[in-house]
Amino acid sequence: MACCESCLCCQCCCCTEGETRTPEELTILGETREDEDEILPRKDYESLDYDRCINEPYVEVLEGLDNKKTKKYEAVKWMLVFAIGVSTGLIGVFVDFFVRLFTQLKFRLVGKSVEECSENGCLALSLLELLAFNMAFVFIASVLVLIEPVAAGSGIPEIKSYLNGVKIPGIVRLRTFICKATGVLFAVAGGLFVGKEGPMIHSGAIVGAGLPQFQSITFKKIRFQFPYFRSDRDKRDFVSAGAAAGVAAAFGAPIGGTLFSLEEGSSFWNQALTWKVLFCSMSATFTLNFFRSGINYNKWGSFQLPGLLNFGEFKCPDGDKNCHLWTAVDLAFFVLMGVVGGLLGAMFNCINKRLAKYRMRNVHPKAKFIRVLESLLVCMVTTVVVFMASMTLGECRDLASPTANNTTAIVSANEDVNSTIRQFFCSNKTYNDMATLFFNPQETAIHQLFHQDATFSPVTLLLFFVLYFLLSCWTYGVSVPSGLFVPSLLCGASLGRLVANVLKMNLGMHIYSGTFALIGAAAFLGGVVRMTISLTVILIESTNEITYGLPIMITLMVAKWTGDFFNKGIYDIHIHLKGVPLLEWETEIEMDKLTASDIMEPNLTYVYPHTRIQSLVSILRTTVYHAFPVVTENREYEKEFMKGNILVSNNIRFKKTSVLTRAGEQRRRCQSMKSYPSSELRNVCDEQVGVEPAEEGQDILQQMLERRHMPYPNLYPDQSPSEEWSMEERFRPLTFHGLILRSQLVNLLIRGVCYAENQSSASQPRLSYAEMTEDYPRFPDIHDLDLALLNPRMIVDVTPYMNPSPYTVSPNTHVSQVFNLFRTMGLRHLPVVNAVGEIVGIITRHNLTHEFLMAKLRQHYITI
Amino acid sequence: MACCESCLCCQCCCCTEGETRTPEELTILGETREDEDEILPRKDYESLDYDRCINEPYVEVLEGLDNKKTKKYEAVKWMLVFAIGVSTGLIGVFVDFFVRLFTQLKFRLVGKSVEECSENGCLALSLLELLAFNMAFVFIASVLVLIEPVAAGSGIPEIKSYLNGVKIPGIVRLRTFICKATGVLFAVAGGLFVGKEGPMIHSGAIVGAGLPQFQSITFKKIRFQFPYFRSDRDKRDFVSAGAAAGVAAAFGAPIGGTLFSLEEGSSFWNQALTWKVLFCSMSATFTLNFFRSGINYNKWGSFQLPGLLNFGEFKCPDGDKNCHLWTAVDLAFFVLMGVVGGLLGAMFNCINKRLAKYRMRNVHPKAKFIRVLESLLVCMVTTVVVFMASMTLGECRDLASPTANNTTAIVSANEDVNSTIRQFFCSNKTYNDMATLFFNPQETAIHQLFHQDATFSPVTLLLFFVLYFLLSCWTYGVSVPSGLFVPSLLCGASLGRLVANVLKMNLGMHIYSGTFALIGAAAFLGGVVRMTISLTVILIESTNEITYGLPIMITLMVAKWTGDFFNKGIYDIHIHLKGVPLLEWETEIEMDKLTASDIMEPNLTYVYPHTRIQSLVSILRTTVYHAFPVVTENREYEKEFMKGNILVSNNIRFKKTSVLTRAGEQRRRCQSMKSYPSSELRNVCDEQVGVEPAEEGQDILQQMLERRHMPYPNLYPDQSPSEEWSMEERFRPLTFHGLILRSQLVNLLIRGVCYAENQSSASQPRLSYAEMTEDYPRFPDIHDLDLALLNPRMIVDVTPYMNPSPYTVSPNTHVSQVFNLFRTMGLRHLPVVNAVGEIVGIITRHNLTHEFLMAKLRQHYITI
Repeated sequence: MACCESCLCCQCCCCTEGETRTPEELTILGETREDEDEILPRKDYESLDYDRCINEPYVEVLEGLDNKKTKKYEAVKWMLVFAIGVSTGLIGVFVDFFVRLFTQLKFRLVGKSVEECSENGCLALSLLELLAFNMAFVFIASVLVLIEPVAAGSGIPEIKSYLNGVKIPGIVRLRTFICKATGVLFAVAGGLFVGKEGPMIHSGAIVGAGLPQFQSITFKKIRFQFPYFRSDRDKRDFVSAGAAAGVAAAFGAPIGGTLFSLEEGSSFWNQALTWKVLFCSMSATFTLNFFRSGINYNKWGSFQLPGLLNFGEFKCPDGDKNCHLWTAVDLAFFVLMGVVGGLLGAMFNCINKRLAKYRMRNVHPKAKFIRVLESLLVCMVTTVVVFMASMTLGECRDLASPTANNTTAIVSANEDVNSTIRQFFCSNKTYNDMATLFFNPQETAIHQLFHQDATFSPVTLLLFFVLYFLLSCWTYGVSVPSGLFVPSLLCGASLGRLVANVLKMNLGMHIYSGTFALIGAAAFLGGVVRMTISLTVILIESTNEITYGLPIMITLMVAKWTGDFFNKGIYDIHIHLKGVPLLEWETEIEMDKLTASDIMEPNLTYVYPHTRIQSLVSILRTTVYHAFPVVTENREYEKEFMKGNILVSNNIRFKKTSVLTRAGEQRRRCQSMKSYPSSELRNVCDEQVGVEPAEEGQDILQQMLERRHMPYPNLYPDQSPSEEWSMEERFRPLTFHGLILRSQLVNLLIRGVCYAENQSSASQPRLSYAEMTEDYPRFPDIHDLDLALLNPRMIVDVTPYMNPSPYTVSPNTHVSQVFNLFRTMGLRHLPVVNAVGEIVGIITRHNLTHEFLMAKLRQHYITI
Repeated sequence: MACCESCLCCQCCCCTEGETRTPEELTILGETREDEDEILPRKDYESLDYDRCINEPYVEVLEGLDNKKTKKYEAVKWMLVFAIGVSTGLIGVFVDFFVRLFTQLKFRLVGKSVEECSENGCLALSLLELLAFNMAFVFIASVLVLIEPVAAGSGIPEIKSYLNGVKIPGIVRLRTFICKATGVLFAVAGGLFVGKEGPMIHSGAIVGAGLPQFQSITFKKIRFQFPYFRSDRDKRDFVSAGAAAGVAAAFGAPIGGTLFSLEEGSSFWNQALTWKVLFCSMSATFTLNFFRSGINYNKWGSFQLPGLLNFGEFKCPDGDKNCHLWTAVDLAFFVLMGVVGGLLGAMFNCINKRLAKYRMRNVHPKAKFIRVLESLLVCMVTTVVVFMASMTLGECRDLASPTANNTTAIVSANEDVNSTIRQFFCSNKTYNDMATLFFNPQETAIHQLFHQDATFSPVTLLLFFVLYFLLSCWTYGVSVPSGLFVPSLLCGASLGRLVANVLKMNLGMHIYSGTFALIGAAAFLGGVVRMTISLTVILIESTNEITYGLPIMITLMVAKWTGDFFNKGIYDIHIHLKGVPLLEWETEIEMDKLTASDIMEPNLTYVYPHTRIQSLVSILRTTVYHAFPVVTENREYEKEFMKGNILVSNNIRFKKTSVLTRAGEQRRRCQSMKSYPSSELRNVCDEQVGVEPAEEGQDILQQMLERRHMPYPNLYPDQSPSEEWSMEERFRPLTFHGLILRSQLVNLLIRGVCYAENQSSASQPRLSYAEMTEDYPRFPDIHDLDLALLNPRMIVDVTPYMNPSPYTVSPNTHVSQVFNLFRTMGLRHLPVVNAVGEIVGIITRHNLTHEFLMAKLRQHYITI
């Protein structure tokens, strides 16, 4: 393996080795490793529910729908999507305008001071001036992140998780948005090695989530009467559109944005949605383009600046017939550069992962201002390095010859490349190459590397790469909003330019340096983020040159494969560190050795169609499940199974499990109940506390006999629990009828939906769809409920409100099928129902994470 | 409505009106309309099965898998995908080379003759020469289509159907491929108004389907030992890749191609697959590019000609600072052009639909050579029109001024625009505008309209549009391979150029004519084909100018909306005429008023886990179903239902249906059995023939009593049918255990998988996965089976071979959920299973077509 060749790579090997057994696996296997325990998939992340719950209130709404209303609804969606696109574009304009303003101000003042001081020798003063600017900006950015900690970082891991179907608290709130958009502005203006592209994507996603709700949790007063789109499904659709618009505005890449949201938002290919997403992206790109062209060039109505980041025009000089942007021969070099990019990217990720872990252990637990101090430290070091490198390490190089100058004249739409060179300490007609790269905004530096016909010295490029690599690696993870695209591109571009220099000068090949810089940028970026389809398209769109498709794609492919050999992409690493239970694209073929019954959660808490309030409250207070199967009992069914029908007989296994289950659950419930001081519930299981878990198995019948006097907490009105229940009656299988969510139950209780024992269930008050969804997305908790207002003997009929037809799977469905169903349909709970309609378990996101499946697979091998 | 303004549009109204009640609806509603009956969704189209059947042989294969084998398998896939891309690119090169060769030859000879004759007055001779060329070419093309009729047309409707999940016989065979690729070459060379892009896509798809199989049905000898990818799932994946490669090669649009296959191939977003598809597209584009650049310009190794069709470079002249490709103001015109394009496209589709129906009624039933005659007629008319128009209707226009000439010099990679003008009858420094458009290959004419700085007269453009519109409308549907993209683009471009002329000359606006021509082309093409995302991306990629994104998208959107107001896209119309049961993207919200039980097919034929060969043969010979549920009986379960559990009680409805069903089915089976002369089966139901269908309902119990002596055809080994069966036993519900395909059953019978009554089922021989899939895709028919070889008393255990865990839905699942599951997972049979695990129906593609759902919805309203 190549990894033992250098000292740094050995670190990578360690990373790889540490990954072979994840902590969750170890936990399941009964082993533990202490230093990894913070990266367990955390159970407190909830799933979004992309499946529609078609219960009676929803059907009522449906019945009221006619063609006209449907069309109106569709029109509203289009308008909202357009609004999201335009708003995202405007955010881009806002961020760009202020970054530009602050940066220009800073560089003009400091540049002037440097020019003066290079004669007077007062460079320290210039440095202090620069430091003051940068530290002030970074301080603001860092304080903003203190206000809302999820605004830190690029936001792409969070959006990726959200689109994958995980609800991360606070991620799409207005406060986060304000902190992020303002914070990134100051972070970039403060000279940190961060990009504004990732935060743009996050901002777009927040706009998508928030705008169609017409309300805000941060500002409670913002609340219009707009009762549509109050479901996870609609919200997630709008977030996809917003994220796509963010990408589109950041890179001027509407198609890339659409593909990004497709690649990350896993739901099924929905043509109508994709079409809206593309429209949203287009709106964002062209809003940004319109305003930037107007503001920057005063050419209102023309469209000349597609995205926040664009790569300028790659173009051969007119006269030169022998110049090609690339030829078939160059492809071989591109593959090699892909390998190098992949290796360096893996190294970047490895170092950053260690840093992130260090921060989690040593920085995050401490007082919050420590984080601000860290940002300021990073800022200080960056500023000093930038200043010193520019002053001392640069070489004076000749300016491009006039013929080449002619070429750049074509690039009229972009900033003129030669206008942004820096001449620090260099005589006329030459320029300081290091200062040109360091003492400019990053986008300008990228332009320089892509389009500057004059040369950079190889030493400068190498030094620049090393410094930039280390500093940007340190910066990503500091508590400021910080994108990773631009720093990675710049790093890679310097490397690519270095390769071009070597090939051109030392080997005398006829190549186009810009292409090599671009490919280098793609290789390193690909090695770091490991995105595939969307990144290819984003880069193609940014260059506005379709012929770069093949080289970019091949480079990204090679970089990804090389990098994946060592570790995961940077976003996936950070998602993993956050403990988000992300679902992959597919399960490995090997996982198909497992079936649904192997991975499901068999311990369930059930609800009957008609349940006493007492029991409901008890269940809600003593469990943490977010959904409860609604079941009825089939008591006489039991005998049937014993008849020896071969196919059905394997159900007996589940039945036994189910008994164990309910006994076990009963016990756990009683134990957990102790922590709740609600006196009317305690009595239910007072005598149960002492039962040992080890007694399960053979003794279960005995236990059940002992417990027969205990009232079963779920009461079916016409089947009051009786002491005369036979043993057989306790072994009853439960027919599955539907699924009801915790939020729905709490809602029913709070709104007093119930009927008295001596009445018919038809007398129960009915809730409308609007009432059921009014509190979305934050439903009240059971602990907010005032028990004194409720009569515990009243009965709730949950059947009109449950989801009567969730997708289900049979226990012997193989994992790949379960996984596809779950992921594609964006489910939150997937009941496992056996051949006779009894529920035997539930599968949630946590049962399908890679760690869980791997652990189960190992168990499977052990059992064999 | 705008449609009453002109005479032609009234025809559209009729079309619209005729669409409100489709024939299937009418049939279901008991009405019939004779003239529409040929466009019923035909039941004989089978579905592809994208779901994996994880039965025991498959699990055996799984168990044998390790990491190494999985990686090898993945590598093979990548190589195949690359091979598909390269092959598709090479096909493009082949077609392009010969079209170019033949066309150049033709135009050179005829052009020379015209120039000579314009002096001598022997133009009739030139016309005859041209006619001879064209008729010969078209004759060859037409004869090729006679050999394989599915090679006619563009192939996009067929590929769209295939990717939607419908198996159309012969569509991906090698013979079709040869006829299509060769045929389109001659059709284009023959001067017909057809494109080669559609056939390219079809060819690519065939390569995708065929290459990974390493065998051919046409040439039986081509058969390697390569037992992988023998399933509908893999085949459909490769077809997506191939179709994408076809698009990519045709338009130089790899991303557009990928999106095309995503848009048409409905399966869930599969990142790994999409990445492969994109790679395949890239390979195709760059293979084509490499060889075309090499062959045409002798610049091997450079990449200058992206696709078969490319639009050249849109570029403002260097000096002109006021020139913009488009501005915000132009957008308003683009919207208007979109509306016009949509209207004209709808008209095109309407006329073409009537033509197609006329052909189906009057041409297709007749002798085959009539079709050849029609092609020759079309060819003759086209040739005469082209010749006469060029000679008599053109105007002599000035050549472009030198400043403009300078601009076109930049377009070095494309054919020089001015080199392809025609000067027929015009003096030096002027050219004949009509001849320039008509007397050139269509791609050249498009280039002329997009990039010619000199002007075309408005009269010429209008005449050209009308002639081209009518002729291309007539041509599409003639029995030659014929694409529609290029003719539509050319039509639209002339219209767009006309608009530009009017705005520039008459209103004196500063606009870029090429952009208007492009937008016109997009508008008309969008109005005809109504594609959305993929078409937008294809056009953006073809222009290689990302800034055209917004105008193209808006135009396409408006054109689609306008057109959809009147009728469907041309491909959908032709799919509809073929009677393909295509599934839309989504169901309308309104459909959610229906549930699975409303739309399912309740008449099922069951198989028991252990069935006698006699019964299996009887079932297979007397039904046409492609899958059979495997069930067991729960006889004692019946009483349970009567107990009044509210939730379960609604199952009784299904049970009654199921009884009716089985009785009805029994009868139907007996009737149909008469047609099979297999003596050992006849006796089963001899006494049953006379039963009338009208007797169903109340008399069913009586019938069942009468029939009690008849042996039930499904025999369960340990429950021989007995005369002592009580009435109650006949009402038995059936627990669902799995689904077995007809092909699997036939395979089991042919390979003698069975055991004797006195043995255990373990003694039954076992088939491997390879044996189960060996005959893919053409499995033997039950009628190929020699019954003499089978002992009818032997028993087959089907459980190891059935699909034990297909996705199922409950009867009260709403249609949108059923539809999403079915379409996304690419299912073929979706069993409907009630709350206690009994199968109550099956949903197939035909139960989800728009026509069927609409009819059921009307029934639903009537019942209410």
